[in-house]
Amino acid sequence: MQQRAENTRQAVLMGAAVSFEKFGYGTASLSTILAHAGVTKGAMYFHFSSKEELAHAVIDAQHHMAMDGLRAIIDDVPVALDALILASQEMARQLVVEPIARGGMRLTLEIGSIRGPVQRPYLDWIESIRVLAERAAREGDLIEGVDVDALARFVVGAFTGVQTLSDVLYGRSDLYARLTEMWRLLLPAIAAPHALDRVRALADGEPRKGTEPVT
Amino acid sequence: MQQRAENTRQAVLMGAAVSFEKFGYGTASLSTILAHAGVTKGAMYFHFSSKEELAHAVIDAQHHMAMDGLRAIIDDVPVALDALILASQEMARQLVVEPIARGGMRLTLEIGSIRGPVQRPYLDWIESIRVLAERAAREGDLIEGVDVDALARFVVGAFTGVQTLSDVLYGRSDLYARLTEMWRLLLPAIAAPHALDRVRALADGEPRKGTEPVT
Repeated sequence: MQQRAENTRQAVLMGAAVSFEKFGYGTASLSTILAHAGVTKGAMYFHFSSKEELAHAVIDAQHHMAMDGLRAIIDDVPVALDALILASQEMARQLVVEPIARGGMRLTLEIGSIRGPVQRPYLDWIESIRVLAERAAREGDLIEGVDVDALARFVVGAFTGVQTLSDVLYGRSDLYARLTEMWRLLLPAIAAPHALDRVRALADGEPRKGTEPVT
Repeated sequence: MQQRAENTRQAVLMGAAVSFEKFGYGTASLSTILAHAGVTKGAMYFHFSSKEELAHAVIDAQHHMAMDGLRAIIDDVPVALDALILASQEMARQLVVEPIARGGMRLTLEIGSIRGPVQRPYLDWIESIRVLAERAAREGDLIEGVDVDALARFVVGAFTGVQTLSDVLYGRSDLYARLTEMWRLLLPAIAAPHALDRVRALADGEPRKGTEPVT
């Protein structure tokens, strides 16, 4: 019974994400969301009482998905600088492939513009990257003297803009290539010489999970 | 007579920019715009027939202001890599100080989300930066082998995201500091050793024109 309720909630969230990504917050309606979710009106209202509540639920789901992805990589990859690069690729993958991430990214900007900025995801990201960068410095993989606070802020800012440009210009079809470019330019300025070839090879790769866009 | 019409048009544009920045495209109304512009309804309709037309005029005005700023720096600064850094500071200054730029940036995202992406400004910026970066390479100021196409795309993308984060988190009050950080991280990877101290000193400076935020 609880499992069924959870499945319905997930179906509504996914329908909302797809619908918000396609039409935007202003134009998406509860009926387009219902059509995409394939559930009854009653089932939807059992979980969410308004479009705004649904939008915030999609943004939260995106943030959880991103943080889960980051945690899985940190658990799996013992070397911090490697984990940092792989985490950025996982974020790119989510933005290309996962409707929750695509819808959430669009909503973050649109809701931010209506209700005031959505800061939490950016702050959590900066803090997570800062912790990784500090560990990379302790592991001797960063060039002596690299400012890890500045690096964390810049990596999150640069990634945000690189994905914006990729979205605006090419619907994110070039995002993996642009991310490789970002690291190719940045790594010589931050990676210690002994680590450079290793992390460059990582940055030239693609995300490890499936990378086929969902249409 | 023509001058008076032009002055009115500028007043309406400025009122629209301030109003769009404050309320967003969805919420700003022709009457809030009129109140900010200090002109009559008739005077406004003589120049613009709808809110959407006004929004596109603000986006165009922002783009012209940005390109004029870039051209002035290129005319004034003979060394291409120096001009590139100063141009980024001028862009930051416009986003902090100029209502047309602040309103235009907000509108670019919001209109893009309603009518499809606004690509022109990004494409023009990438092309302008590419030309500068190519010249910097010919002048011997870039490290041998730096990919100037990648550099141009990345500088525009990274700047876009750095200003997004600065806006979302601190209303752009830290934008000059974040831009300095961006160049401090990036320059060692792109500037030839003989040029590094010179351009680092430039990047540590602030924009040359007035930098007091308009409130």
